[in-house]
Amino acid sequence: MGKGRVEAFTDGVVAIIITIMVLDLKVPEGEDFSALVPQLPIFLCYVLSFINVGIYWNNLHNMFHTVQRVDGRVLWANLHLLFWLSLMPVTTAFMGENHFATVPVAIYGFDLAMCAAGYAILVLALQRLHGRDTAFAKAIGNDRKGRISLAVYIAAVALAFLNRWISVGLYVAVALVWLVPDTRFSRVLEK
Amino acid sequence: MGKGRVEAFTDGVVAIIITIMVLDLKVPEGEDFSALVPQLPIFLCYVLSFINVGIYWNNLHNMFHTVQRVDGRVLWANLHLLFWLSLMPVTTAFMGENHFATVPVAIYGFDLAMCAAGYAILVLALQRLHGRDTAFAKAIGNDRKGRISLAVYIAAVALAFLNRWISVGLYVAVALVWLVPDTRFSRVLEK
Amino acid sequence: MGKGRVEAFTDGVVAIIITIMVLDLKVPEGEDFSALVPQLPIFLCYVLSFINVGIYWNNLHNMFHTVQRVDGRVLWANLHLLFWLSLMPVTTAFMGENHFATVPVAIYGFDLAMCAAGYAILVLALQRLHGRDTAFAKAIGNDRKGRISLAVYIAAVALAFLNRWISVGLYVAVALVWLVPDTRFSRVLEK
Amino acid sequence: MGKGRVEAFTDGVVAIIITIMVLDLKVPEGEDFSALVPQLPIFLCYVLSFINVGIYWNNLHNMFHTVQRVDGRVLWANLHLLFWLSLMPVTTAFMGENHFATVPVAIYGFDLAMCAAGYAILVLALQRLHGRDTAFAKAIGNDRKGRISLAVYIAAVALAFLNRWISVGLYVAVALVWLVPDTRFSRVLEK
Repeated sequence: MGKGRVEAFTDGVVAIIITIMVLDLKVPEGEDFSALVPQLPIFLCYVLSFINVGIYWNNLHNMFHTVQRVDGRVLWANLHLLFWLSLMPVTTAFMGENHFATVPVAIYGFDLAMCAAGYAILVLALQRLHGRDTAFAKAIGNDRKGRISLAVYIAAVALAFLNRWISVGLYVAVALVWLVPDTRFSRVLEK
Repeated sequence: MGKGRVEAFTDGVVAIIITIMVLDLKVPEGEDFSALVPQLPIFLCYVLSFINVGIYWNNLHNMFHTVQRVDGRVLWANLHLLFWLSLMPVTTAFMGENHFATVPVAIYGFDLAMCAAGYAILVLALQRLHGRDTAFAKAIGNDRKGRISLAVYIAAVALAFLNRWISVGLYVAVALVWLVPDTRFSRVLEK
Repeated sequence: MGKGRVEAFTDGVVAIIITIMVLDLKVPEGEDFSALVPQLPIFLCYVLSFINVGIYWNNLHNMFHTVQRVDGRVLWANLHLLFWLSLMPVTTAFMGENHFATVPVAIYGFDLAMCAAGYAILVLALQRLHGRDTAFAKAIGNDRKGRISLAVYIAAVALAFLNRWISVGLYVAVALVWLVPDTRFSRVLEK
Repeated sequence: MGKGRVEAFTDGVVAIIITIMVLDLKVPEGEDFSALVPQLPIFLCYVLSFINVGIYWNNLHNMFHTVQRVDGRVLWANLHLLFWLSLMPVTTAFMGENHFATVPVAIYGFDLAMCAAGYAILVLALQRLHGRDTAFAKAIGNDRKGRISLAVYIAAVALAFLNRWISVGLYVAVALVWLVPDTRFSRVLEK
């Protein structure tokens, strides 16, 4: 089964998720700078989630690039990942509107953890379909970066109940690590 | 007439439907776990509808894959299906916000039945355009699974007035049956 | 300049317009059938606009199919048409929520008239770019159906102040005329 | 790395931004013409932003047309531009709902300035990847029009605190300058 339409559908859903998040940025009430202050935490959450969804788009873009084919299992693993990504607008707004309160911060981390788990499951479904010597298998390797991210997110959910700012710091840290471009795929492709 | 743009448009609309459903998941009011409780039925409905729309995407993906061409009749049969799919976000929220009350459960089933009918009409329009020996005709067969689903949905609408949980159970059952990957198309394509 | 991306962008915007209209179908308040009654006019307007936007998608699909190339003028004529189409969700909800009151009915017709004018301008921009003997020129002919629709919409805006139901009837009539598949393009392509 | 999917994703996000802006055009309350009056400034802001986002789509369309390839740096420069574009619906509604008050007008200009800066950064990232003699380098030249726009937007933000109508006038003026089709790319392509 060709990968083209799965790529296009995935890009479409991710494009919609990244854009409708802005609908939770309510128009500030009032017309001077003080009207913007209560929006600040919501805005910062929006920036963080925009970067996170952007990272997923980037990673999915690179990953599907080396993929040769897909099957029903991959389609559903992909939809499962999109499901947790689709919750980003809600969990982002929940964290922002409650000014980084403990439970919303933990819920946001739970969503990030489920996205990371969904990504890992998608990688497994694709590895199952491709041999050990394919470009895909070489590029993805053992997906160490993805697994560590998942572990950090799970830890952050628990740590939120100790001190929620530790969790927020971890979310930012993981995002920064991924912003450093993932050279695995380009290295393999260059060979 | 080429099928490319119909596929792309259909995928686009389905991608938007599956994603804007999340806009009806209101941000919980309050900042502890108890704030999430009233959201639970809405969330469960969201999961069910996400899977249902995902099944339609998957089926349309497979079906259009074996299709050779489309005509005006197919375009409108497709738009008719998309119309009932586009109501999913509203009927889902109606069922969720009313905690699975009888009438909303029946309305949700009515929408599912109309989607299933729309899919059956689209199949007929495509069968009319393709001969008996084409890959499409062989792959779709008599679409028994689709026809049974339609019958179950119609029954579920009526049964909701007896006991609404029967209907909800039937919606979940049909979704699970479809989640088992449809091997008809891949079997034909392999030959 | 290739027409591919203009087609894709246009399809994307039309897909979003046709889908976000559903966001104005508010979730009914209440859990029995009587809760659906106040939604009925809004729902009927939604059906009418879904068909109207579907007709535009269908026509743009057919038209761009015979087009050979586009220029800056065509890009902006196309964006102009999309602008008036993008107002459909608002004018539709305005007419529905006010139960077909006079001014909303006239405003809805004004939007339809501007869409029809935008379509006519797009046809002119494409005719300017293509010679008299091209497939496009032959297929579009003098676009009589488009021009008559525009005239009917303008008349309907004025007639709304006499009797708004005349206007609503005209909107429905024009939609039905277009639903009859436009054979001009397919006839030319078959030759 | 191929440019195809970046183009498609960018077009998708821009299509969604230009369309969801309409969700901030609230349905007028009331059913006569006077109900439309408070919507007028919001509508005018919508028109201005529709044109601005249309200009970005047009420019990105032309620019990516002459581009040969992209890398991780370009992907993120592009996402950075899309981030500021994605704020357009909010900053537009903020300016419109406050009837062009000083701070909202300045914030709107700040968003436009960041979009222009994001575009300039994207141009730099693409220039870094393409040699001096490529079609891209020749077409984009020194991007004088883009740099002047950025300077005007920055000036307009400051001038808003002197007289907000100067700023609004500058926003309209820049949009009009860009509406005059950019012939640089087509001139290079014709050679």
